[in-house]
Amino acid sequence: MKLTIIGVGLIGGSIALKLREKKFVDYVFGVDQNEQHLIEAKELGIIDESLSLEDAVHQSDLIILAIPVDASRTLLPTILDLVNDNQTVMDVGSTKAGIVNAIQNHKNRSRFVAFHPMWGTENSGPKSAISESFTGRAAVICDREDSAISPLQTVKAVAENLGMNLLYMDAESHDIHTAYISHISHITSYALANTVLEKEREEDTIFQLASSGFSSTVRLAKSHPEMWVPIFRQNKENVLDVLNEHITQLRKFKSALEKDNYEYLEELIRNANKIREILR
Amino acid sequence: MKLTIIGVGLIGGSIALKLREKKFVDYVFGVDQNEQHLIEAKELGIIDESLSLEDAVHQSDLIILAIPVDASRTLLPTILDLVNDNQTVMDVGSTKAGIVNAIQNHKNRSRFVAFHPMWGTENSGPKSAISESFTGRAAVICDREDSAISPLQTVKAVAENLGMNLLYMDAESHDIHTAYISHISHITSYALANTVLEKEREEDTIFQLASSGFSSTVRLAKSHPEMWVPIFRQNKENVLDVLNEHITQLRKFKSALEKDNYEYLEELIRNANKIREILR
Repeated sequence: MKLTIIGVGLIGGSIALKLREKKFVDYVFGVDQNEQHLIEAKELGIIDESLSLEDAVHQSDLIILAIPVDASRTLLPTILDLVNDNQTVMDVGSTKAGIVNAIQNHKNRSRFVAFHPMWGTENSGPKSAISESFTGRAAVICDREDSAISPLQTVKAVAENLGMNLLYMDAESHDIHTAYISHISHITSYALANTVLEKEREEDTIFQLASSGFSSTVRLAKSHPEMWVPIFRQNKENVLDVLNEHITQLRKFKSALEKDNYEYLEELIRNANKIREILR
Repeated sequence: MKLTIIGVGLIGGSIALKLREKKFVDYVFGVDQNEQHLIEAKELGIIDESLSLEDAVHQSDLIILAIPVDASRTLLPTILDLVNDNQTVMDVGSTKAGIVNAIQNHKNRSRFVAFHPMWGTENSGPKSAISESFTGRAAVICDREDSAISPLQTVKAVAENLGMNLLYMDAESHDIHTAYISHISHITSYALANTVLEKEREEDTIFQLASSGFSSTVRLAKSHPEMWVPIFRQNKENVLDVLNEHITQLRKFKSALEKDNYEYLEELIRNANKIREILR
């Protein structure tokens, strides 16, 4: 199988590495606006060859869009214009309603599968790609009834080769769940970093003291705006909904402390501890 | 050297394991209100023997308080009443102003060293103890001018044997820094867990979807109130100060989204990314 990766960064690169390793694909074309990334991806064995979008798509069985969600939404109709009934197009974006709505009336809609592998790091670029990234993680296919059987089978096989646990849901539900499970974590982490940077001027002290707890909550704050602004923008309503709730929850801690109501503080913490039963 | 660990849980247990392994101590007494923990600690090789507080203190060169910060503050004067000029008492608590103020006029003040190893997990109890926990982490000694030379040397040797990087600061500064570096992370994590538990009723979906990013930001929400309510209580003013700033920072994200001001959103994120330069 011949693969085109559009966007040879962290996610696209990691997928290509794993699919090559599993011999699911035997030739990989890379498409990227960033020439340096294409050179690195070739050096790292992620791609065999860099090509123009049109040439790469024409020669590929499977095309994976692995660029920021706004760029994916803009580019997908063009790609679908180019494909035939033997080809599969999939994305890997963190928001889904926007992209499926953008192509709902496209004649080749059924060649597209909306896919979201639930993995990422705060890093980016081909040098961050790791073939084992996805093993054991969840992956979601959205609106499967809008995809034809053969592209669905191809994407299922991709998920299997990546070692992922596949779930199905509609795009709207996906975007609500990811607002909770992923997008809000990034906002709290960014806000936490800004809090510390605003008030804690002794940077050396932060660096020397930073506990593992701080590092793990603030890790996501290293994630780049190129990826995350489009996600927040496309999932604005859900993210705002969760963000408002989160601020409400923080205000409860503030109120408990201000009023020296430590029974209430304990109750808030005991409630949070229930996450133990869900996330073991 | 003979050691008494008061509180044979995660922190006390981990310290005892490491100090035994390094042969810094050759006999360990355990003191704990929890009988089951004492039995487990003995089975796990953390302690040699459980004893009453008074008997254990009398027979020890070094006494380590590793119980919640409110209990430490209450118990420390009693322990200092029992010690002589050949003994060292240290704590491992996450707040420092409270405990040093409680003993500032005690005749044996100088036998005490206020110590804070910057490590912890969301787990508790002797079964969670790990001898390698502290390696490479920061440890703080507060108000060293109030401790005598020999206890300071003993505690320095403890830090060395734990493989920690030792810093010195006054108790007030310590409490401000830890509000930023540790305490606020716990509050955001608790609030994030409560947000998800409040709004996301499909627990199965959380469990299946939870990405590594979510798991790492919410991990601290598993931490127990027995430890954390006393910390927030003792560090109330600093924690409230940071919490107010954090809510202000979150409101900026909310405002940027509500007003579709994506340039501002990007600016907020780029600012947060500066944490990369501090936490590599």
